[in-house]
Amino acid sequence: MSRVAYVNGRYVPHRHAQVHVEDRGFQFADAVYEVIAIRNGAFIDEERHLARLARSRRELKLAAPMSDAALKLVLRETARRNGIRDGIVYLQVTRGAAPRDFAFPKAAKPSLVVTSRRMRIADPRLIANGIAVITLPDIRWKRPDIKSVALLPNALAKQQAKEAGAFEAWQVDADGNVTEGTSSNAWIVTAKDEVVTRKADDSILNGVTRLGLLDIIAREGMRFVERPFSVAEAKAAREAMLTSATNGVLPVVKIDGKPVGQGKPGKLALKLAAAYRDFMDGAA
Amino acid sequence: MSRVAYVNGRYVPHRHAQVHVEDRGFQFADAVYEVIAIRNGAFIDEERHLARLARSRRELKLAAPMSDAALKLVLRETARRNGIRDGIVYLQVTRGAAPRDFAFPKAAKPSLVVTSRRMRIADPRLIANGIAVITLPDIRWKRPDIKSVALLPNALAKQQAKEAGAFEAWQVDADGNVTEGTSSNAWIVTAKDEVVTRKADDSILNGVTRLGLLDIIAREGMRFVERPFSVAEAKAAREAMLTSATNGVLPVVKIDGKPVGQGKPGKLALKLAAAYRDFMDGAA
Repeated sequence: MSRVAYVNGRYVPHRHAQVHVEDRGFQFADAVYEVIAIRNGAFIDEERHLARLARSRRELKLAAPMSDAALKLVLRETARRNGIRDGIVYLQVTRGAAPRDFAFPKAAKPSLVVTSRRMRIADPRLIANGIAVITLPDIRWKRPDIKSVALLPNALAKQQAKEAGAFEAWQVDADGNVTEGTSSNAWIVTAKDEVVTRKADDSILNGVTRLGLLDIIAREGMRFVERPFSVAEAKAAREAMLTSATNGVLPVVKIDGKPVGQGKPGKLALKLAAAYRDFMDGAA
Repeated sequence: MSRVAYVNGRYVPHRHAQVHVEDRGFQFADAVYEVIAIRNGAFIDEERHLARLARSRRELKLAAPMSDAALKLVLRETARRNGIRDGIVYLQVTRGAAPRDFAFPKAAKPSLVVTSRRMRIADPRLIANGIAVITLPDIRWKRPDIKSVALLPNALAKQQAKEAGAFEAWQVDADGNVTEGTSSNAWIVTAKDEVVTRKADDSILNGVTRLGLLDIIAREGMRFVERPFSVAEAKAAREAMLTSATNGVLPVVKIDGKPVGQGKPGKLALKLAAAYRDFMDGAA
């Protein structure tokens, strides 16, 4: 099955999926996006993704390219045409193409691009083995709560992680506290079995999987607190983990080369990873 | 004459100038750019622009799409095909198109896009009337010294300026000092006729016009110092001005609605604007 993408009203062969060079997504990073996991054909937490997309758009005064109802049909049709039952759908909304000028164009039509591809969601091997993270300064702009494509610092940080043999980079603010990963939220479990993650203010993206896990934690009656934690606290924590739409919950077993706890996936991380996978399977 | 753009090896009609939706310039702002002024057919300070482009690329470990010699030919040919003798040439280099992944692709070919258009460079009316700026917090990432297309905060700030009836927004760091405009460098003239602009460390882009003006200031033996200045100092300054490749030197006559000095273009600003225009005319 050859790949197909949706671009501004048309389904086109992936290799011909193009946008104009003066699309503001290309020249100004003036665009927002979402990645939605598909598991057994089900779109995981689609409503929350679309709500966050709408919030990102509102913060940037970026018009909707179409109604949510129409957008859902496009997402489904793109997945269907690519035969994706386990993978992701990626959607990007830009302020449209217009003669290059920093200020917003008076009359540009928002662009919408949707792609879909096969991917192993919440890969059991990654969960079983756990993953390593490095830490580095958070050099991003001050509004990472907006899911924009101004992702250059994230790309640089992920590349540094990869070169260090790690899976993800945890970004650290001026106070020495972890903000989040480049494409995931960061969590620890304290010696008192308290689950800790940073409050979703404007220093982090409010992950949809983060919200899903908060639901599970509340339902299970686990001890939980939203607060910043330092790199030192994370390294000394009983457990650590990350969340993202494509990975679900992943145990973090190493930070900057130092083992977390026993250097193996933690008890609570494994429990939460399994619970989150059950939640995804329930959606199917 | 219909417009033509250069895209990855081909000269194409502007309306058909497109890049792939998985170009990293579109999905990750993983790209750098330059804007070079053309005056009477001359490319102003091309060497400095190309040197800065190379520096931006090096900082991001982004390969060159071609040699500088070849690039110069493409820039000239794009301007020629568009019949531009007074205007700009815009060039953008991205890390190329690759399946979406934050880390760098193993084997992507850098993309190169070049456009050219007519524009009034160093508009005499703007110089004669001066322009207004607003000030707002600098919320950009911590490497604005790299001329990347991660320009979303710049676009938002310029839009705010426009809505406030101003020409530009001066961004202000956590210490209350002006960093720079969204697409220009910021300057003041003190009561002692000392010209002041911020040192080009990693908090600002080292403007090519900024460097050109420094040459003129040195040649003229004017009093000059590189140091940060606060918003309060700028508002109380004798004169203020900005520099950019398309505007040359522009007097700033209003900051946040408050007149600078007499609320008219300052003596030194006008002198430097004229000297910079002479420099550009000399290049032709």
